Amino acid sequence: MTLGEQMSQLAKQAKAASRELAKLSSAEKNVCLAAMAEALEPGAACIKEANARDLEAGARMGLSGAMLDRLRLDEGRIAAMTRGLREVAGLPDPVGRVLDERVRPNGLKLRKVSIPIGVVVIIYESRPNVTADAAGLCFKSGNATILRGGKEALNSNQAIARILIEAARQALAAFPEHAIQVVPTTDREAIRELLALTQYVDLCLPRGGEGLIRAVAECSKVPVIKHYKGVCHVYVDADADLEMAEAIAMNAKVQRPAVCNAMETLLVDQAVAPQFLPVITRKLAEKNVELRLDQAALNLLKPQLPGLHPQPNLKAATENDFYTEYNDYILNVRLVDGLKQAIEHINHYGSAHSDSIVTRNETRARQFLSEVDSAAVYWNASTRFTDGGEFGMGAEIGISTDKIGARGPMGLEELTSYKWIGLGNGQVRK
Amino acid sequence: MTLGEQMSQLAKQAKAASRELAKLSSAEKNVCLAAMAEALEPGAACIKEANARDLEAGARMGLSGAMLDRLRLDEGRIAAMTRGLREVAGLPDPVGRVLDERVRPNGLKLRKVSIPIGVVVIIYESRPNVTADAAGLCFKSGNATILRGGKEALNSNQAIARILIEAARQALAAFPEHAIQVVPTTDREAIRELLALTQYVDLCLPRGGEGLIRAVAECSKVPVIKHYKGVCHVYVDADADLEMAEAIAMNAKVQRPAVCNAMETLLVDQAVAPQFLPVITRKLAEKNVELRLDQAALNLLKPQLPGLHPQPNLKAATENDFYTEYNDYILNVRLVDGLKQAIEHINHYGSAHSDSIVTRNETRARQFLSEVDSAAVYWNASTRFTDGGEFGMGAEIGISTDKIGARGPMGLEELTSYKWIGLGNGQVRK
Repeated sequence: MTLGEQMSQLAKQAKAASRELAKLSSAEKNVCLAAMAEALEPGAACIKEANARDLEAGARMGLSGAMLDRLRLDEGRIAAMTRGLREVAGLPDPVGRVLDERVRPNGLKLRKVSIPIGVVVIIYESRPNVTADAAGLCFKSGNATILRGGKEALNSNQAIARILIEAARQALAAFPEHAIQVVPTTDREAIRELLALTQYVDLCLPRGGEGLIRAVAECSKVPVIKHYKGVCHVYVDADADLEMAEAIAMNAKVQRPAVCNAMETLLVDQAVAPQFLPVITRKLAEKNVELRLDQAALNLLKPQLPGLHPQPNLKAATENDFYTEYNDYILNVRLVDGLKQAIEHINHYGSAHSDSIVTRNETRARQFLSEVDSAAVYWNASTRFTDGGEFGMGAEIGISTDKIGARGPMGLEELTSYKWIGLGNGQVRK
Repeated sequence: MTLGEQMSQLAKQAKAASRELAKLSSAEKNVCLAAMAEALEPGAACIKEANARDLEAGARMGLSGAMLDRLRLDEGRIAAMTRGLREVAGLPDPVGRVLDERVRPNGLKLRKVSIPIGVVVIIYESRPNVTADAAGLCFKSGNATILRGGKEALNSNQAIARILIEAARQALAAFPEHAIQVVPTTDREAIRELLALTQYVDLCLPRGGEGLIRAVAECSKVPVIKHYKGVCHVYVDADADLEMAEAIAMNAKVQRPAVCNAMETLLVDQAVAPQFLPVITRKLAEKNVELRLDQAALNLLKPQLPGLHPQPNLKAATENDFYTEYNDYILNVRLVDGLKQAIEHINHYGSAHSDSIVTRNETRARQFLSEVDSAAVYWNASTRFTDGGEFGMGAEIGISTDKIGARGPMGLEELTSYKWIGLGNGQVRK
């Protein structure tokens, strides 16, 4: 079989499985999810054996310590997958919700009902726990899934999937075995082949670094829902409660800098900058955050530097810095001439992910919330809340900055499409 | 300027206009739409002059009579555009609807609110009235639109757009002039250039024949919402009310055969075929519908042919016929061995557009509605109802058979996306 034929077979099997999956009741799906969760602990030895092979090969290939750590599956991480599957089992079924209902003058009843999307391809990087998380969310929402993890994690991913599938089959005879499939090759060309199969594949969700996501979006013929990066902003307005602004900015930057909803650029209204900037600079310096400042902020801070303890690590920001997602203890700071410039900055340099205004002024807050064109916009809250769990969606399969399909955190409901159902008693069109 | 630069400028202008458009109130948008509607009649001479140039060039290029007729704008068609714009002005604003609302345990209020998509490219064929219809729907939903009609209609399209824009500018100073733009070239390469500009263009809606839509979907880097074709089915179940089945099948086939929601294949349970097939064959023959029958239907009908008046025009169906959208007085007929085979036929040969079951049996009806994987599924009603007007959406910009974004008829609400708004009082993430 050529690679193309292999991918075609995989996708065709997934499509067939998706039709069977769509027929399962919520109870049947939950029985399978519970069985999957139960099976991971007894399967831990098998998973760890496969993982050890991946780790060994990874070490030989010269993976960094951080990469090897992401790849490693221990008891704790296996237990977390188990908890994740149990949580998903406990969430409401997103399929079959009546989204709209109307009766037409001719008596035709129309109902807009949520349905599974069909076949979802998930492309991700090194963490093998995504295999269980994504499989669980897709299964609960009635979607067949094709999983393509990092090439260094193939053995681990296959071991996890095998255990999940076997458990579900034993729990429910009607479980379609191709509901969950792992792409059985590490050939990069497989992704291109798979994402050309528009007749079978309904959606692709890439998760990972910007390079991976751009490569997937570039080659895909099937719809892709994604975010390239999270260049998030906090804007401290002239009417901000400065203590609140400090707490929000610190949380947005340092509570977990490596994630997409962490702040990368702090915008400060020049009216409050003389008061706010020295304070926040000292706070950030205490957390070893490197600052990249625009000229106005530099000019303002420079005379005060001798009096600051600890000494901040700062330099001039380049144009490019304002487009950059650091995922690190680095922060851009820019002074702006009011709300309009802040909004323009965010819509120009930002990534349409999560942005926040801190202000007591409701008019300006409303304008910010309305005109900042991002998936999530906040008034007096940290950008760090853009997250399926924090939004009360339960588990999350990703975050979208797209305009078509889901936007913001994607939970179970965001893994559904819809159909229109017309109930008549003989209506014909006049 | 190269073509690429020209398209880039167009798209960039549209993006900037979309930001201005998003700020307009419903009242402001309606004032503009009313002014646009008002302006078409006084502008009729100008439109007809441009249209005459298109018609002349079209005749020189050897366009068919049908094509020239589609291209022609007369008083009646201009009046229809006026009515369309007035109707759109009267519809509720789809922007700013609260789609979801929740308060988190930490007090953070989350609101999911509908917003315009941004920049929408509409690609269509020869009818220039689409220019006014699409511009009106996109404008009302707060989207900047880039219109690319048939090359033979460029003068007409530009004349219509010019009148709409001029009217809106005079009615409202804040009207952004690039809210509505017509691609000023007939170069086909322009489409590829435009649909590569993912940083500016948010969505493409192609309308027209399958060839056009496939070409657009193939080359586009921006999301495309579409249907390739409408291969719609009516399934006459063993428990059908056969009079109702006859009325629905006739309506679905002949009330307007040239449209996408007309039936192309009639599936008949073999249990009722001996009774139903001769009756429907005679009815269809009266309307000069050519029949393409599977072997079982042929075998059943052949002995009865001498007794049928008028004589039906029939032949054996090929495999390919079952995939075909005729848009004409031609119908495939296949006998099936019950519901399961009917569903399999539809999911295999159909186009996921509109399919109907006629039956008195609720269990089978529910199974059909659930398992047929189409945008619109009907029980005891004609497939012809899949239409924005018939669904009560008001005007319609297209019909989607996709799973991501809108599905089924697309009205104003389907031209919106959403954002999450978080209202806090200092919440930070723990």
